Amino acid sequence: MRRVLVTGASGLIGSNVLQPLLSAGFEVHAVSRDASGAPALEGVAWHSVDLLDERSRNELLRRVKPTHLLHFAWFAEPGAYWEAPQNIQWMAASVGLLEQFAAVGGKRAVFAGSCAEYRWGSTQPIAEDAALGPDSLYGVCKGATRVAVESIGRLRGLEVAWGRIFFLYGPGEDQRRLVASVAHALALGKKAQTSAGTQIRDFMHVRDLAGAFVALLDSDVTGAINMASGEGVTVKHVVELLGAAAERPDLLEIGAVPPRVDDPQLIVADSTRLRNEVGYVPSISLEEGLTETLDWWKSR
Amino acid sequence: MRRVLVTGASGLIGSNVLQPLLSAGFEVHAVSRDASGAPALEGVAWHSVDLLDERSRNELLRRVKPTHLLHFAWFAEPGAYWEAPQNIQWMAASVGLLEQFAAVGGKRAVFAGSCAEYRWGSTQPIAEDAALGPDSLYGVCKGATRVAVESIGRLRGLEVAWGRIFFLYGPGEDQRRLVASVAHALALGKKAQTSAGTQIRDFMHVRDLAGAFVALLDSDVTGAINMASGEGVTVKHVVELLGAAAERPDLLEIGAVPPRVDDPQLIVADSTRLRNEVGYVPSISLEEGLTETLDWWKSR
Repeated sequence: MRRVLVTGASGLIGSNVLQPLLSAGFEVHAVSRDASGAPALEGVAWHSVDLLDERSRNELLRRVKPTHLLHFAWFAEPGAYWEAPQNIQWMAASVGLLEQFAAVGGKRAVFAGSCAEYRWGSTQPIAEDAALGPDSLYGVCKGATRVAVESIGRLRGLEVAWGRIFFLYGPGEDQRRLVASVAHALALGKKAQTSAGTQIRDFMHVRDLAGAFVALLDSDVTGAINMASGEGVTVKHVVELLGAAAERPDLLEIGAVPPRVDDPQLIVADSTRLRNEVGYVPSISLEEGLTETLDWWKSR
Repeated sequence: MRRVLVTGASGLIGSNVLQPLLSAGFEVHAVSRDASGAPALEGVAWHSVDLLDERSRNELLRRVKPTHLLHFAWFAEPGAYWEAPQNIQWMAASVGLLEQFAAVGGKRAVFAGSCAEYRWGSTQPIAEDAALGPDSLYGVCKGATRVAVESIGRLRGLEVAWGRIFFLYGPGEDQRRLVASVAHALALGKKAQTSAGTQIRDFMHVRDLAGAFVALLDSDVTGAINMASGEGVTVKHVVELLGAAAERPDLLEIGAVPPRVDDPQLIVADSTRLRNEVGYVPSISLEEGLTETLDWWKSR
């Protein structure tokens, strides 16, 4: 029996992995600080646990005894998360979580990393062995957590994979984030002001990203893996697709917001490992995904 | 004015850096969880603070506003420290300490790392760029802390150096450790049982090690530095020197204790960076240092 513990399970990515995990044959245990509002899903056991509390965390692991771990939980408040001291607490909690996972007999763990671990400024798609050099406390703590959990993997005889997330979007995203803020405005028939959006990013629909994480968990691939489409688009193009989907391109005010200082021109993954080793290919086109996201905001 | 905050200041290494720091012209602030028993030293300001407590730690840094940081504090109980969960807490506390040091205007920080970060089993002296691969939770957490604090150095514009300690000895060492246990037995006229001691290690007297840390703090060298003599001796030789110093070689029972499983044959530093870049050369010979250590145990 393969039993997976999913942390951050009520978050954007976590909530999208539960059904695919069931379909892949896992017994699914989902953790959230407060699972009381979590949607009931046949076959998913929910646990309300504060993973920053060592005692509660260890007790949960002893109780569930998972064979697999899928760890998304982290401090993720839009804007604030880049420099929040909570990054340090989540680094420690993540390392402690893996230690206890090993102690109760766990076999394979997959962690959510970030493109923020890399040194930005590359003019090429970023492969997993590209230079590291985080530009935020978030990136620092994700990067150091990777080093620790990969070492613990070797030390305790666990398989550990580290999935670096690039730019995601989709229904349910926090409305302070780019795609959600524009889709939300358009859904309300309001003007959407953005920067010129010339920067190129690698976007992936949250359901594709969730599918990629389940495929990674279900594989024997270890180490760092870019969880991304490998295809770059300008932010302007994403905004224009939303305007077209809403049939209200007139509401877009592209260039009304000044560009962010030091925003790198290109952040695109080399996704060869995900495609060739994990064997996962995303299936939701940007047009479909953005239209679905807009419709979700309209339905709110 | 250069103002240094020394953590772990009542520990074996910390207590040996205070006088050299004063001599080097630093205003010295010493931290210990409980400084009430600390020896008074003209010019040293003591602070009783639990560095694992984020609030107290941050408040201390705001109050002292050090320009320099010398961080020795860590969980160090002999035997227990290799696998204790406290290693994870100290990783987080060390990263948080550097963040707050940067926030209050700190310029240069030196951390205590360990030879336990390296992959042991080399047949050559270990240089700083040798393969990493810790074999204990202690080594994992020291290694991940290094990655985090070096990243924070780049991010916040601080100088960060990371001094990897090999094998130290000297007066005041915990008697559960090798040199102290043998010296203690000999001082009491009791038999000293050891393993065959064929393994080769790199020993440094704690006063030399303290001097090396002060020289490193006083330099502009950054990154990882081996804090070691660069000279390998067998453990058996060290034990025999103690027997000779006590004029009681008859009390030694070398080989009475079985060797530790998986104990690597050779752990010796390449100390080129310390000698050439920091410009520090240890001055206490093993014979002198061991005789002094024995005398210290006799005087207890």
